Amino acid sequence: MDLVAELVALLGGPHVITADADQAPYLQDWRGRYTGRVQAVVRPATTEEVAAVVRLCRTHGAPMVPQGGNTSLCGGATPDDSGKAVLISLQRLNHIRALDTDNDTLTVEAGCTLAEVQAAAAEADRLFPLSLASEGTCRIGGNLSTNAGGVHVLRYGNARDLVLGLEVVLPDGQVWNGLRALRKDNTGYDLKHLFLGAEGTLGLITAAVLKLSPRPRSVCTAWVAVTDPAAAVALLRRFRTECGERLSAFELMSQMTLALVLRHIPGAQNPLAEIPSWSVLVELSDTRVDAALDRILESVLAPAMESGAVLDAAIASSEAQRLALWGLRENASEAQRHEGVSVKHDVSVPVSRIPEFLRRADAALTAAFPGIRIVAFGHVGDGNLHYNCSKPAADENAELLAEWGGLNRIVHDLAHELGGSISAEHGLGQLKRGEIRRYKSALEMDLMERIKRAFDPDGLMNPGKVL
Amino acid sequence: MDLVAELVALLGGPHVITADADQAPYLQDWRGRYTGRVQAVVRPATTEEVAAVVRLCRTHGAPMVPQGGNTSLCGGATPDDSGKAVLISLQRLNHIRALDTDNDTLTVEAGCTLAEVQAAAAEADRLFPLSLASEGTCRIGGNLSTNAGGVHVLRYGNARDLVLGLEVVLPDGQVWNGLRALRKDNTGYDLKHLFLGAEGTLGLITAAVLKLSPRPRSVCTAWVAVTDPAAAVALLRRFRTECGERLSAFELMSQMTLALVLRHIPGAQNPLAEIPSWSVLVELSDTRVDAALDRILESVLAPAMESGAVLDAAIASSEAQRLALWGLRENASEAQRHEGVSVKHDVSVPVSRIPEFLRRADAALTAAFPGIRIVAFGHVGDGNLHYNCSKPAADENAELLAEWGGLNRIVHDLAHELGGSISAEHGLGQLKRGEIRRYKSALEMDLMERIKRAFDPDGLMNPGKVL
Repeated sequence: MDLVAELVALLGGPHVITADADQAPYLQDWRGRYTGRVQAVVRPATTEEVAAVVRLCRTHGAPMVPQGGNTSLCGGATPDDSGKAVLISLQRLNHIRALDTDNDTLTVEAGCTLAEVQAAAAEADRLFPLSLASEGTCRIGGNLSTNAGGVHVLRYGNARDLVLGLEVVLPDGQVWNGLRALRKDNTGYDLKHLFLGAEGTLGLITAAVLKLSPRPRSVCTAWVAVTDPAAAVALLRRFRTECGERLSAFELMSQMTLALVLRHIPGAQNPLAEIPSWSVLVELSDTRVDAALDRILESVLAPAMESGAVLDAAIASSEAQRLALWGLRENASEAQRHEGVSVKHDVSVPVSRIPEFLRRADAALTAAFPGIRIVAFGHVGDGNLHYNCSKPAADENAELLAEWGGLNRIVHDLAHELGGSISAEHGLGQLKRGEIRRYKSALEMDLMERIKRAFDPDGLMNPGKVL
Repeated sequence: MDLVAELVALLGGPHVITADADQAPYLQDWRGRYTGRVQAVVRPATTEEVAAVVRLCRTHGAPMVPQGGNTSLCGGATPDDSGKAVLISLQRLNHIRALDTDNDTLTVEAGCTLAEVQAAAAEADRLFPLSLASEGTCRIGGNLSTNAGGVHVLRYGNARDLVLGLEVVLPDGQVWNGLRALRKDNTGYDLKHLFLGAEGTLGLITAAVLKLSPRPRSVCTAWVAVTDPAAAVALLRRFRTECGERLSAFELMSQMTLALVLRHIPGAQNPLAEIPSWSVLVELSDTRVDAALDRILESVLAPAMESGAVLDAAIASSEAQRLALWGLRENASEAQRHEGVSVKHDVSVPVSRIPEFLRRADAALTAAFPGIRIVAFGHVGDGNLHYNCSKPAADENAELLAEWGGLNRIVHDLAHELGGSISAEHGLGQLKRGEIRRYKSALEMDLMERIKRAFDPDGLMNPGKVL
């Protein structure tokens, strides 16, 4: 029997998709950069079915591409165009398996959307703190495979920091049951951390034990005008020193970014009198109802205003105002889209190097690409900037896109020089798989390749990604 | 030239120790369980010297045993008795390399004591939260290699959670420079997490970039009598829900444990009127000076007292009282030592299973070993118990020790049955290297062995440990 027939025998016809039109939504990435072809898209419903699919694919030498919500920004879940691969959609593994409120853990299957995981935590009066733009669509398995970041990393860590255990189908079809719900377990190599962030190249995450956090009962959000990025970093330090873990977001936004949001997003309003050179969205949250966060926030801002580092500030006085401030931040990408394509970056540097990065990148890009428009914003508390470049006119952008490589070179070389990363939270996927070789040492690439060979000697698991 | 001569040529005579008397302190573990022999103890002073030593050892086929402060509780840093190995002491790599206050990171060499690292953080008005009994002696490289735990894991995580980057000398003498100081970096497999907790079997950690936290400016500590472990778990949940990250310690202690401390530790005083069946040490801390922690603590305890789950409580009203409460907890092991040897365990289970573990372990051990005395205490907020067994009379203890295996079997089987671990924070070393094979799946052991072969094909790095 050929592979597709065997897959149909295993899963039933409706869950083995071979018609082009039905396959199409799975074969192109969210940004529309990559389009692949496959023998079949399969939709197993259980870990055992996933394992059986993997064993069949392996027997037939067919490459496998795991996919959750298909929201990768780097083509991490899109097959190549050889047509040899089988795309394994995890969307039917979408059950909440267990909730343990005394242990503060939630056991979920890979195909739950991030929003479903958040909701299950909220129902138990707990918080699952991972939060990002695509949360209604992305699946937790994908979030873990790319070690997703988002707006609350500052306080709660990256996706990997929220995981206690994993269940993984290995490239040979064996199932590793690492679904431990322990906060301490020192019995050998931490396999979990190897699969987290491996983008499905070492095995296929089918379930996870997630850590829950207490639910905040007070929140206070402000929009703050600062003189420059150095003032933002100084303010961050002051907030961390004085507020500790209350600080749950600290987002930076350039004048150009806010201007585009105000121009293009319906209902967007500037909370301040002018559009600041640099804005910071700062949020404090606390489990206590009587946390007096507005008073604390003001007490931190007051000396910074006196010293001139903070020029103006608006504290949200209602939930509607709070959401409006977040809307300004969350629509940054969307606003830029209204002005045409852009060359996007997802870089990180040590927080202390943020001002230097912004100053030097701006100067180098302006010199190399006169008239370039830089939309800089991001999670400055994590040293993570989304740094997007475009030209004011749409036709110039085609030109700029053609020089994509040269532009990347400037931005990535600088991030690297400052001890940074060319992919802070989006992973490598197909997009940065070549680029990373410029920056990672040959030794580190060799160590990664040794691990890949040890786990997937036939190279069938999500080939062409990461390595 | 023979290996020792080459090592002398490399490091100079004073740093290659061959005399038995001079070697002795390095060759026996802290508990006195294991004694080994070596060709030489070497004391390189730099990463380059470590790498050169490793290359020499490899050329000569000599096994290498890395050692920090020699405080392993599982014989993880003690050589075997073949006399073939070279013991590489990291104690001269003891420099603080860098401090970045805006990035909240500290770059340290492996041979710094944990106390030195804590002090460097404190000097910068920051906290390095790892804290454990041996902190004056143990070295940070060893802490990271065993992924040490301690009393503040509840709030700040295990040692691995406090690390952003590593420098590692690989088994072939190459140096991996992974000293990144980034909070977000998603560019491939997380090698750092592979070396952390690997007990020196995959490479030798020479330096690390550590995350710092804001320094608490308020602290409030209480000693609380609860009816039973279930009441302790319920109280923990209430504290987490209402106090969030303020909760920085939640330690459980049995009546027997406290009784031994009061009997043997000079100056120890019971903070309550009676010795409770079960005591909890709870601590809140906050970056704010005006945190009103005593009021918050009382507000959480009050309803628990009304419901009868909490029987009595004493809140420390001075720093001296606070330290006295901690003294009761920290002297638990020491107090038991006064009554002779004991069989010690370091198990973890999901927090929700703590009451069941204690109830069933107690019943099974009492049935199997009539008259057995159980000293149970630990980091219940992490699901981690130190569960030590002895007999009231010293001569009976020799008998009990002889049945060490059977006793372990009961405790470890139960922890495993409840989804737990037989080594929560001490690692495997030599002590539990065989025992773990009973509990970890063959598949997981196989994956670990594949990694070991990929990194150390000749098996020269700390052989006989972990695997």
